[in-house]
Amino acid sequence: MADSSTNMRIRLPMLCIVLEVILIILFGILVEYDENTDGKKWNEKGNHSHHRQDYENEFYYRYPSFQDVHVMIFVGFGFLMTFLQRYGFSSVGFNFLIAAFSLQWATLMQGFFHGMHHGKIHVGVNSMINADFCTGSVLISFGAVLGKTSPVQMLVMAIFEVTLFAVNEFILLSILGANDAGGSMTIHTFGAYFGLVVTRVLYRPNLDKSKHRNSSVYHSDLFAMIGTIYLWMFWPSFNSAITGYGDPQHRTAMNTYYSLAACTLATFAFSSLVNHEGKLDMVHVQNAALAGGVAVGTAGEMMLTPFGSMIVGFLAGTISVLGYKYLSPVLEEKLKIQDTCGVHNLHGMPGVLGALVGAITAAMASKEVYGDGMIKVFGESDSSDWSVGQQGGMQALSLAITLGVALFGGLVTGFILKLPVYGAPPDTHCFEDALYWEIPGEEEGHNELTEVGTVNEVEKLNS
Amino acid sequence: MADSSTNMRIRLPMLCIVLEVILIILFGILVEYDENTDGKKWNEKGNHSHHRQDYENEFYYRYPSFQDVHVMIFVGFGFLMTFLQRYGFSSVGFNFLIAAFSLQWATLMQGFFHGMHHGKIHVGVNSMINADFCTGSVLISFGAVLGKTSPVQMLVMAIFEVTLFAVNEFILLSILGANDAGGSMTIHTFGAYFGLVVTRVLYRPNLDKSKHRNSSVYHSDLFAMIGTIYLWMFWPSFNSAITGYGDPQHRTAMNTYYSLAACTLATFAFSSLVNHEGKLDMVHVQNAALAGGVAVGTAGEMMLTPFGSMIVGFLAGTISVLGYKYLSPVLEEKLKIQDTCGVHNLHGMPGVLGALVGAITAAMASKEVYGDGMIKVFGESDSSDWSVGQQGGMQALSLAITLGVALFGGLVTGFILKLPVYGAPPDTHCFEDALYWEIPGEEEGHNELTEVGTVNEVEKLNS
Amino acid sequence: MADSSTNMRIRLPMLCIVLEVILIILFGILVEYDENTDGKKWNEKGNHSHHRQDYENEFYYRYPSFQDVHVMIFVGFGFLMTFLQRYGFSSVGFNFLIAAFSLQWATLMQGFFHGMHHGKIHVGVNSMINADFCTGSVLISFGAVLGKTSPVQMLVMAIFEVTLFAVNEFILLSILGANDAGGSMTIHTFGAYFGLVVTRVLYRPNLDKSKHRNSSVYHSDLFAMIGTIYLWMFWPSFNSAITGYGDPQHRTAMNTYYSLAACTLATFAFSSLVNHEGKLDMVHVQNAALAGGVAVGTAGEMMLTPFGSMIVGFLAGTISVLGYKYLSPVLEEKLKIQDTCGVHNLHGMPGVLGALVGAITAAMASKEVYGDGMIKVFGESDSSDWSVGQQGGMQALSLAITLGVALFGGLVTGFILKLPVYGAPPDTHCFEDALYWEIPGEEEGHNELTEVGTVNEVEKLNS
Repeated sequence: MADSSTNMRIRLPMLCIVLEVILIILFGILVEYDENTDGKKWNEKGNHSHHRQDYENEFYYRYPSFQDVHVMIFVGFGFLMTFLQRYGFSSVGFNFLIAAFSLQWATLMQGFFHGMHHGKIHVGVNSMINADFCTGSVLISFGAVLGKTSPVQMLVMAIFEVTLFAVNEFILLSILGANDAGGSMTIHTFGAYFGLVVTRVLYRPNLDKSKHRNSSVYHSDLFAMIGTIYLWMFWPSFNSAITGYGDPQHRTAMNTYYSLAACTLATFAFSSLVNHEGKLDMVHVQNAALAGGVAVGTAGEMMLTPFGSMIVGFLAGTISVLGYKYLSPVLEEKLKIQDTCGVHNLHGMPGVLGALVGAITAAMASKEVYGDGMIKVFGESDSSDWSVGQQGGMQALSLAITLGVALFGGLVTGFILKLPVYGAPPDTHCFEDALYWEIPGEEEGHNELTEVGTVNEVEKLNS
Repeated sequence: MADSSTNMRIRLPMLCIVLEVILIILFGILVEYDENTDGKKWNEKGNHSHHRQDYENEFYYRYPSFQDVHVMIFVGFGFLMTFLQRYGFSSVGFNFLIAAFSLQWATLMQGFFHGMHHGKIHVGVNSMINADFCTGSVLISFGAVLGKTSPVQMLVMAIFEVTLFAVNEFILLSILGANDAGGSMTIHTFGAYFGLVVTRVLYRPNLDKSKHRNSSVYHSDLFAMIGTIYLWMFWPSFNSAITGYGDPQHRTAMNTYYSLAACTLATFAFSSLVNHEGKLDMVHVQNAALAGGVAVGTAGEMMLTPFGSMIVGFLAGTISVLGYKYLSPVLEEKLKIQDTCGVHNLHGMPGVLGALVGAITAAMASKEVYGDGMIKVFGESDSSDWSVGQQGGMQALSLAITLGVALFGGLVTGFILKLPVYGAPPDTHCFEDALYWEIPGEEEGHNELTEVGTVNEVEKLNS
Repeated sequence: MADSSTNMRIRLPMLCIVLEVILIILFGILVEYDENTDGKKWNEKGNHSHHRQDYENEFYYRYPSFQDVHVMIFVGFGFLMTFLQRYGFSSVGFNFLIAAFSLQWATLMQGFFHGMHHGKIHVGVNSMINADFCTGSVLISFGAVLGKTSPVQMLVMAIFEVTLFAVNEFILLSILGANDAGGSMTIHTFGAYFGLVVTRVLYRPNLDKSKHRNSSVYHSDLFAMIGTIYLWMFWPSFNSAITGYGDPQHRTAMNTYYSLAACTLATFAFSSLVNHEGKLDMVHVQNAALAGGVAVGTAGEMMLTPFGSMIVGFLAGTISVLGYKYLSPVLEEKLKIQDTCGVHNLHGMPGVLGALVGAITAAMASKEVYGDGMIKVFGESDSSDWSVGQQGGMQALSLAITLGVALFGGLVTGFILKLPVYGAPPDTHCFEDALYWEIPGEEEGHNELTEVGTVNEVEKLNS
């Protein structure tokens, strides 16, 4: 019976090839170099107020940030999820696959919604950053369902999620005029609640059968720390990657740096405090220490000050640790939300916090504080019918819309992913690389698989 | 008998010290700061069309790219090769040693062939990038012979390979006027075929005796993924590192980004398709997913478009996976080419593909498409006797010459490396760190060495 | 009895929370955006000689270097110390905690001593780099006491060390006018000797009881190499991060690059030479290969030339390996200095070498060589009462003062850390993560803990 088989031989190759062929065709029809990457347009003379120098090319403002974001997407997310003892190949490998697909699809969807020029999508380093951002959102959702889904399911999820991400982003940034440079709402809140609803719909009552694999071992926790540390270090680049040139980019990076530093102290403090022996928990350090970056994703470009950033970071770390300790078990038992990586604690709650902080900070903005820099942060601020109160309101409305789109989108996508055609792992073989990967000759430290006789079972599942 | 001993005590230190002393002397005689690094020359006033601002220093255009390339050379190549279960120290360690030597020697050789100014070699960030590029070529060849050679052999190989690299690069770029910014020909094709011929000459009929070590274990594959992901992420920086400022650098990075994304989907598709259970193979993911970067190494700076880049990337991933699955076993059995890392699949074939794509793309260039940006890509294009057809021809000729120099150079170097004076490992102890490294107290997962009694044998070999 | 317990439940959370609250309050009172990060000040028109363009914002000169330094602090130092078989969580985790605290505290201390503007501390990317530098010094000291101290002790050490670092830096740079862009003196010499004195004061005569854990295993050495390679690659960015714009920054990066390359060859040469079987030692490769970066930390921005840099690097690598082999055992046995990571060999001696090279290179500076670039390196050089001899003298005096402050500060701090209130590990449980961390279900390769019955003992210690 094909439905119960986890054999990917036809499904995965066909899906990848069909998707890539579609992408290539659409790129051929729709995508053009923007004026910073086009040989002709960039070097045209006379059609600008001054002759542009090569050092004014967007590349030099944006590319170092892009590379940092790129590292977060592929190394950061990829290795963060290697904490599972038998799911390292899938964590870093499927992260790689999903991200490589999503960034292409996102280029088209984001371009379609807010990058069309005379019927063409213009691409350059800005679209690359935005595509990586959208990919980040998909990977957050991936964290919620990690270990319980096949790569085919994940690609299908990415198709829908990227599309809805672009719709939501368009509503927030283009229609409502909200600010969200670092994506507290568009990336983190959206990705987290989308993924949580998906994992709710895909609820597995018998997941206990794979419980022994749903945990880390010593070395897998160290691999995960590679992901954590890279995310932590480069988050200032993430939040500042598409802010205005000059002071906003500089300020955003710095606010994020301070928020994360304060968040880290809160994380260690509460991780130790909630343990009856005062021992630190790697899960908290790997995740909660990052919540400070999420929580200044909206307000970071504003004049939040290091002082404000540190308060926000401290709060974010605190709620994140408490979430892991007290809320996650409740969500799992009462609401049947099996959130493998705890994305609700790292992206969900801190994302909502970040949206609220953004709304408040926007509502408190003043020409006195921002001076002529006001317009760099609030692009509409020179319009006569704009006020900080209105901006704050739009920010709050944006959060509500984001939650709505995420919940609705996750619900629909979840039911689509429930169809029994994707080769999802059985309850007994979740969190297990051997389903989808050739596993090399085992070290003795990893022979659990043979011990419990799952190799034969895996063979059967694949037939 | 000294010849059969693998003890490095005299050979390795003496070679390192002699080489470094020679390098230091030659640097003292020949090397000078270029005008971007020299305190006097950079700050001279009046001898330029305008007074240069510090932000125009090459450092700010090039250094971020240099650092990304540097990461690829030391982390990317180094960790990619840690996939072998008992050769991690040597992979990352000898990679480190060979690279540290090669970049110094390359500075001299490249400077000698195309960087002399009044009898002096001028150095700055451009020479640093070029030296890292040349080093990359040596490390590709290292991948072909990995596990079967001593560090002394590798250093000797580097001496010859760097020299011939500089000669070939000089012919291509300076004499023929070929374009090869990302090195599809100069770096990948050259390094791969050079290494393949060396490993052919060093053919070991009894390598089977070390077969049990010529494979990965679970954790070593995760370490290798660190290398893969860094190479993948920073390849856009690699290909664009020495292109023209402004649009070419920007465009090259973007073309490479799309090529790699498409390549990754092809890799997962074909890796699953060629496995009878549809399971993915880490070897493919670790290597073939990178072929897209190699294959746009020549054409990336041209107006290849994202559409063209994705087609090239998809093809590269496809041929690379098929090469690992079907061609490598044939090369080993019929042609006696023992290619440890499969560099033919990652660098050889994709490099040739990249050269051909470059020739075709150059031949299709037009002023209509490139506008005033034409001269930034094709430096000779304002000369009256230049045509795109001629450029295309020169590109094709460059591939032929590269193959010729690589094959001839590899043959000569291979025979030199066959001399029984370098302490090469015996057939029974290939892929084994313990020959050249103090190995720490073993984890239980790694006690194979003691089990098969090789510790005593290793002691004997070192005496 | 609270004193003998290693339970952190009250102590660590309280200390973290109190410190962070104090930091937040002080930031609220004292810290302001500098003119590159402030929305109002950056965009003010007319108060500068020319209207500043956004590409002139310090961010674009400094931020890529900052990110490289950040990677060195968190990944470089963090993973370098994971070489211990049972102390990986603590190495990377406490490194994270201490660094996150230190960079905040350093911002205040350094701002207080040399960054006050009308009673406010101005912050921007420069202060971020300087704070990371100061943090680096604390982490060097952490390396000396690694495995033998509780996180509470480390935070207390950081409070004192950061303060004294700022004092010493103020004396050197602001009072004496010394040059030390890459911190041979302020960072490396200071951090090393401070830490060595602390570990001397905390001498444990019965540390042998934890000897079996004070060593590496195969995989932990590979994790440590991640740290090493990142430190090695980004050291050029470290040394050049706060040098003058343009040629000094460019030159410093390049000098460091050559010094490190030469150092690496020396390291491999002497590591093999001092082993009776000619085998390489991972400890040397992990550490001594970095000494070349330390040793050009002062002179790197000067016209040292690649030739000079390579000589310095070669010497640094040599003394570092010889230090590990011959000096460290003597220091431990005779002087009772238990230097876990061998910081004396990596930071101590090479730091002193770097200070001396800096003094000599400064004393040999001339207008002939530096031209108009002189003032970029020696800020006082246009003053009538300045001479190169005097500069050289100030450099030498700076080394003496640094040693004095480090030794005195380490002594006082050491005695403070000796108070039996911090939950330091007992002699039998040094180098052991399980004291302070929840350890996941063990792989078989790591079951030493259960074997020797320490789990129960650890439980007792925590009660």
